[in-house]
Parts: sequence; structure tokens; C-alpha cells
Amino acid sequence: MKPIVGGIEAGGTKCDCVIGSGPDDIRAKIRIATTDPQTTIDELIRFLTGYEKSNERLSALGIASFGPLDLAPASPTYGSITSTPKPAWSNTHVLSTFRDVLRIPVAIDTDVNVAAFGEYCWGAARSLKNFLYITIGTGIGGGGMINGKLMHGLTHPEMGHVRVPQDNQADPFEGVCSYHGNCLEGLASGPALEKRWGRKAELLEDDHPGWRLEARYLGYALVNYICTLSPEKIILGGGVMQKQHLFPLVRSEVAALLNAYITSDMLAAHLDDYICPPALGDKSGVSGAMALALQEIDCLSGII
Amino acid sequence: MKPIVGGIEAGGTKCDCVIGSGPDDIRAKIRIATTDPQTTIDELIRFLTGYEKSNERLSALGIASFGPLDLAPASPTYGSITSTPKPAWSNTHVLSTFRDVLRIPVAIDTDVNVAAFGEYCWGAARSLKNFLYITIGTGIGGGGMINGKLMHGLTHPEMGHVRVPQDNQADPFEGVCSYHGNCLEGLASGPALEKRWGRKAELLEDDHPGWRLEARYLGYALVNYICTLSPEKIILGGGVMQKQHLFPLVRSEVAALLNAYITSDMLAAHLDDYICPPALGDKSGVSGAMALALQEIDCLSGII
Repeated sequence: MKPIVGGIEAGGTKCDCVIGSGPDDIRAKIRIATTDPQTTIDELIRFLTGYEKSNERLSALGIASFGPLDLAPASPTYGSITSTPKPAWSNTHVLSTFRDVLRIPVAIDTDVNVAAFGEYCWGAARSLKNFLYITIGTGIGGGGMINGKLMHGLTHPEMGHVRVPQDNQADPFEGVCSYHGNCLEGLASGPALEKRWGRKAELLEDDHPGWRLEARYLGYALVNYICTLSPEKIILGGGVMQKQHLFPLVRSEVAALLNAYITSDMLAAHLDDYICPPALGDKSGVSGAMALALQEIDCLSGII
Repeated sequence: MKPIVGGIEAGGTKCDCVIGSGPDDIRAKIRIATTDPQTTIDELIRFLTGYEKSNERLSALGIASFGPLDLAPASPTYGSITSTPKPAWSNTHVLSTFRDVLRIPVAIDTDVNVAAFGEYCWGAARSLKNFLYITIGTGIGGGGMINGKLMHGLTHPEMGHVRVPQDNQADPFEGVCSYHGNCLEGLASGPALEKRWGRKAELLEDDHPGWRLEARYLGYALVNYICTLSPEKIILGGGVMQKQHLFPLVRSEVAALLNAYITSDMLAAHLDDYICPPALGDKSGVSGAMALALQEIDCLSGII
């Protein structure tokens, strides 16, 4: 019998929570607004324990969380949100709160690492040992696997905060990042598009010049990730990437910037496959959270 | 008895080759000019077989090579140099040539990955699972370990070719990279410094404004590596970094650019230790090559 687990994707504006044995077997789900930590976590716990009362006990829980997170294995505050601009969430002990109440194994990682893990188990990155998942939406973030493991290090990647070349003549926009101004997130996130063009990104017509500029900044960032990490694939998700016409624009910027320096078919003939949308669509996060839960109880064999 | 191995560091202008059981037990060494592939490889093989005739048989050979290299394990041309601007070296089968003549296990990796491995075994990166080794000299390159393994992926990192912001007003220099113009290598390598200022880097006085600009470009690159990979340490080697006064300049650029966004003592109080020179000095490469040879015959236990 397949174990039934919970998967939470906690984002800055909403939280999704699913219960099931995998993305093709969802038994219950809920979407709530992310408000203050206590209200939000309480509501999620009520949903999970409510399911357990009427059905079966959950075997484990996986959490994909916005951050920054403390993911140092030896840290006494492992699994907590550290300093976030999101009011009231700084120093929230996410992992331990769920574990202490539910009394089941709980695993946590960054939203982007977990989405990457979902794509690795059931999506576009199956069997790859080195790939990236980048989300371009309210914020920009990236995660993925290197040498077959999710990316961790001193802390965890903050890929949205890389600096990219900006032509101040052509684009004098000062950026929206409260820490860095014109880092990638400052120049190319959804809020950056909205502030620069005075309209939400989804309201910009496909031939608006803003998309070419957007592709340019994303192209710079992707080329830098490629030169730094040599990933086998880059998956681009998030709200801004819902604009499908952005994919060919980004690919052509990447090809022009690399200028055939790195010899690889993937970066030439197969660039459409190399830079691609998530196969799980907007389900990468909750699916990855379920996979994280299954991994925590050693039940991923047969899947990966 | 410790196994005796060979270690080669093949650079664009010279090759170093050592024989011994580790960096503290070098039994023979040679430095030759890098000319055409046949002459250079023949000379190295003569040195290695000459040693074997008068002394003992070597157990294995490790090679740190300039690139780009074919390091795809399943490739029929594994261990060869692919397309390089260096005349005559394109498609040189480095690994198989040494292996076929010497008939011992031979391992190969990029010069920077191997230097990183040397620092991991005997130097500044002992016991770290995630760190970078960047060399800033005739070219700029980077390697290191992620999740406890040397960095490989689609091909291997080409960290010198990342793009960084350039203020064209303050520095209208077009860059020296033949592929990308003003990528990091194009703006901040030794040849870039020489072309921009009309003098070799080592002849620029310490208070020359070029150093502050150099620190700025390196700072941008390091911050991008940090945001992308979250390394636990960054070792800076190579000819340009012989200018010790460049270290505090780079550290202060990194601190200013990060703007305390990533919470970590290493990036605050311990930045001197976080961004540091190689503990093995200019011996990281040959030491790492010996370590690679020892690893190839499973003789690294007790060292790592």
C-alpha cells in the first residue's frame, strides 16, 4: 500500500496543501491566503488533522516554503524562516511547529528546490543529476540539483539576486529590490514589470517592447547560471513565464550571448528542450513537497 | 607503503609535472613550455618513464588540464581537449595518450577543478563540501565542489565567461574575450588589465585606480556565484591575485553588493576567511593532480 503524505507549498500570498500518494493520486487539497504565521499554520494543521480524523493517518509531511530558510542541518532553528521582508514571518519555526503538532516526519526546503524535486520525480527533469528550476513571478528564485542532490551550501541559493548588465541609457529603471535595487529580481520580476510599464505583466500585449527587455535580462542571468554551474537543463516557471512567447525570446538571447563558446548539442540543436517550462505546470511545488515527504520516510524507490 | 603517483598541471604557457606521494613528498619535478601537443606530451612522458626506469613504477597519473575538456563519462573522446583557441590543441586526446603509453590508471579534470581538489585534500578547503576555486590570470576560470563532488554537468563550468555590469561611461573598455568581448575574463583577466592600462598587471602600482575597478568586476562575479551556488568558501588564485592588496578590495565590494541580504557569519564577521588565497599557493594544481591520481586507485583514505 502506498503511503499517504501531505505536501505544502507556502508562498508569499497563498498556501497550497495537498494530501495523497503522488501528483496523480490527490485525495484532498486546500488553498488558503498567507496571512500571519499563526493563523496560516493553524489553518493548514486543521486541514491536515481534519483529513486524518475522517480518513487515514498521514505518514509524513513535506513543505516547500518561501524564505530565506535556516537549512543548516545542525542548527537549533533548522527549518525556520530567518529574516524576511514579509511582516511577522521572521523567525517562524515552520518545520518544528508542524512536527510537534502532527507527530509525523516533516521535511522542508526552499520553494524552488522543492519544485525542482517535483520536476525531478515526475516532470521535466527525470533522471537528470544537474539541473535548475527558476521561478519568475512576484519574486525570482532558483534551485535545483547538482551532483544528484538538492542545492544547499553556506545557506541556499538566492538566484534572483544576481546582478546583470543594464544599459542605463535604454532602460534607466532603478529596480524594485529593497536590498539591491537593480538585481535580476529588481529588474525582471512581476512587480518590476508592473512598476516599469505601469501595468501588470499579464496585461502587456505580446509585442510590447518590455518582453524583449525582459528576455534580455533573463538571458544574461541564464547564461551566467550556465557558465557557473553547467546545468543539463533549465526549467522556467512562475507567473511571468505563463507568457509562452517569452520562451523563444529568452532562448534566442541565450544563444546570442553564449556565442557557441560551450560545445554542446543541448545548447545548439536542442535549446527548446534545454530551456523549457515545468512539465507539472503549477503543480511542481506541491508535487515536490509530497516527494520530499516520501523521501523522508524512504518511500521514493520506484519513483526515482 | 604510500603509492607513488604523477601529477601534471597543463597550462596554456607551461606544464608542471611532479612525482611523489603527496605535496609534502615530491620525489621529482619538471617544468616545460607548452608548445605543440606532440612535443609537449612526449616531453612529459619521457620525464615520467625516465623516473620509472631509475626508481619505482608509478601507480597512477592525475592531470589538471586547460580546456575546454570532454569530461562526459560515456563519450568516446573522454579526456580530450575539445575546441580551444590555442593552436593545434583542439581534439587532442590527452587522457588516452598518457594511459596508452604509461599503462597505468590516469584521471583528468579541468585545471580549476583539480586545483580545488588539491585545496580540499591539503589546503584551505579541507572538510568543506561546497566551495569554489577561482583563478584570475591569463584567463579566468572556476571550479570546485558541490555536495561533496567536483563540479560537472552538461560540460564543466566556464565561470570566467559570466557577464557582469559595466559602467560604459566610467570604463568604456570593450574587453579582450574573443567570444564575448566584455565578459568577466574580457574585462578582468591579466591580458585585459594589460590592454586597458598599457602595462602588465604586476607593474601597476598598488594605488593605481585600475585595482579598484578590478575589485568591482570581481566583486560582481563573486556575488553572483554566491547567490547562485551558496558556497561555503571562495578561494582566489592565479597571477593577478598575487597582488595581495586586491583581497580586501574584493571583500569590501562583495560586502557592499550583498548588502547583508544573506544572513551568515561567514559573509559578515568572517569574510577574510570566506574569500581567501589558496593555502597551497601555486601548488594547488599539481597537488590536486596527485590527489586525483590517488583517488583513481582508491588511495585517498586518511587524506580526506
